[in-house]
Amino acid sequence: MSTGYHVAIVGATGAVGIEMIRTLEKRRFPVARLTLLASARSAGKELAFNGSALRVEELREDSFAGVDVALFSAGGSISKKYAPLAVQAGAVVIDNSSAFRMDESVPLVIPEINAADIPRHRGIIANPNCTTAITLTALHPLHQAFGVRRIFASSYQAVSGTGAQAIEELRGQVCDITADRPIRTQVYPHQIAFNVIPHVDSFLDTGYTREEMKMQTEGRRILHHPGFLASVTCVRVPVYRAHSVAVSAEFEQPVGLEKARAALSHAPGLKLVDNPANNEYPLPLACAEQDDCQVGRLRLDCAMENGLAFWVAGDQLLKGAALNAVQIAELL
Amino acid sequence: MSTGYHVAIVGATGAVGIEMIRTLEKRRFPVARLTLLASARSAGKELAFNGSALRVEELREDSFAGVDVALFSAGGSISKKYAPLAVQAGAVVIDNSSAFRMDESVPLVIPEINAADIPRHRGIIANPNCTTAITLTALHPLHQAFGVRRIFASSYQAVSGTGAQAIEELRGQVCDITADRPIRTQVYPHQIAFNVIPHVDSFLDTGYTREEMKMQTEGRRILHHPGFLASVTCVRVPVYRAHSVAVSAEFEQPVGLEKARAALSHAPGLKLVDNPANNEYPLPLACAEQDDCQVGRLRLDCAMENGLAFWVAGDQLLKGAALNAVQIAELL
Repeated sequence: MSTGYHVAIVGATGAVGIEMIRTLEKRRFPVARLTLLASARSAGKELAFNGSALRVEELREDSFAGVDVALFSAGGSISKKYAPLAVQAGAVVIDNSSAFRMDESVPLVIPEINAADIPRHRGIIANPNCTTAITLTALHPLHQAFGVRRIFASSYQAVSGTGAQAIEELRGQVCDITADRPIRTQVYPHQIAFNVIPHVDSFLDTGYTREEMKMQTEGRRILHHPGFLASVTCVRVPVYRAHSVAVSAEFEQPVGLEKARAALSHAPGLKLVDNPANNEYPLPLACAEQDDCQVGRLRLDCAMENGLAFWVAGDQLLKGAALNAVQIAELL
Repeated sequence: MSTGYHVAIVGATGAVGIEMIRTLEKRRFPVARLTLLASARSAGKELAFNGSALRVEELREDSFAGVDVALFSAGGSISKKYAPLAVQAGAVVIDNSSAFRMDESVPLVIPEINAADIPRHRGIIANPNCTTAITLTALHPLHQAFGVRRIFASSYQAVSGTGAQAIEELRGQVCDITADRPIRTQVYPHQIAFNVIPHVDSFLDTGYTREEMKMQTEGRRILHHPGFLASVTCVRVPVYRAHSVAVSAEFEQPVGLEKARAALSHAPGLKLVDNPANNEYPLPLACAEQDDCQVGRLRLDCAMENGLAFWVAGDQLLKGAALNAVQIAELL
């Protein structure tokens, strides 16, 4: 493949980085050259791409010479330091961290919703928070139909959102408990196996976590809706890789169930799975490794006027991260 | 012990039945005689009570002769058939099923909230749904302080709520997955290990489940608040025995955080665990086998006036079932 783009992945050995490589392959992104970058600790590892083994290089200030598109997923501080260097070297950065999401000069994009914001980038485009991306994929078609005012939501977030070490921590704890051995806790402050932890990201003075407020702050930017309100409880659950969210949404206009169903069933990136009589509703296990998010459990909210309750699930590593980033790259 | 009451437990070999026996022991309930009743399948089993082995008898129409207090936890159809027979035989029935909860002639009681309703019973007193009991234990002190209008809530319900077979199903699936064997699914319609299932109890035409509507219908009776609204999503999670609930509650009066904290920290049956800076908040794992429910993650709700968001957890088999039943018996 000689025509195409020089793509770099920063954080290539992480849970999201690995999915970025797979997503580039799966979607046949026109890659002329792929540079895999990670910390010194991971440099030297080999990862497969389109059948050949690529050696992971150490991320350095001069890593971006000749790079067209750089996909960052190595945490906020790495993005803050290296994304501007990549832009200086001529690359467009698509950043999966929270570093630039609230920067007014950086478009924050879910392609199905606000692809139109991409062209105004100045070198960096931000990928939204995973729970926000999955929730808004379902909320946006409803917003178009009825005009959303506010939501009350609770998340059921998989350990993949914390990264590869967290996936190992859940697996290890389950094995230790099954074998009646004492468990080890390193990534999370508490045991995650057979438990749920109402603590994702750090706490703010208001009592909400940063993760919980992203739905409102990022949602306002993505929906171009400065008055959007979202009260969220983010909870880590012992699921490996897809997030689920229970939502009660209030709208400006009266909500019709059939109209809601129609809006959701025609929305891009979304599958309506809503046949409770046959035990059919979105399940995180069924969303794992699927590009589309799933929405179901639709019902007129019994505690408010113009309200709709629903349940949405999606692969946190794909729509919540790698897929969304590659979709943005495709639109560049 | 020759003075005291003749107590019968219907469904003695079930997950709740076993906890009823333990709770009678632990709280030194004045038991003169304990009769353990179950289906023919379980009759003949022996269960320990205060150091001696008691033989489980088959439940029959004439099982209640001389019984003072009968604790029922064997499902709605058993309660509907046998509770009236127990009352005829002179017993007071405390029923953990949903059979009589909406019967206006039957008090529905959480002792910390509406013990005053007990005396108007006509032989049967109903125990509320477990998720409702745990949520209202925290909501009631806030209702007294600020006057609740409505809540939006999502549950994280342990498999113990479905019974002993469900506990075994989760354990078995985890073992099978760890050993790379195919899993078996009998109790739940989908795999529960490493998954969450937004389906508890059966579906109504509205799209809500029966379980979800219990918060509103039972809440109205327990709080004596016919206008109370509750929009709930009930979700089964791979946790063994304590339920958690994320709540956004709207009140008539402005909510003060300090006043809310004071109300919750003095409430009976409740422990305020709310120090996020030290990673202290209620965890289902920490509530297992504890009488008190735990409440925390208190914050002024960012999406409504007069709103408070919180997180409550409690042992589903204890406050959600056995403990509440024995507390009612103590007050008789």
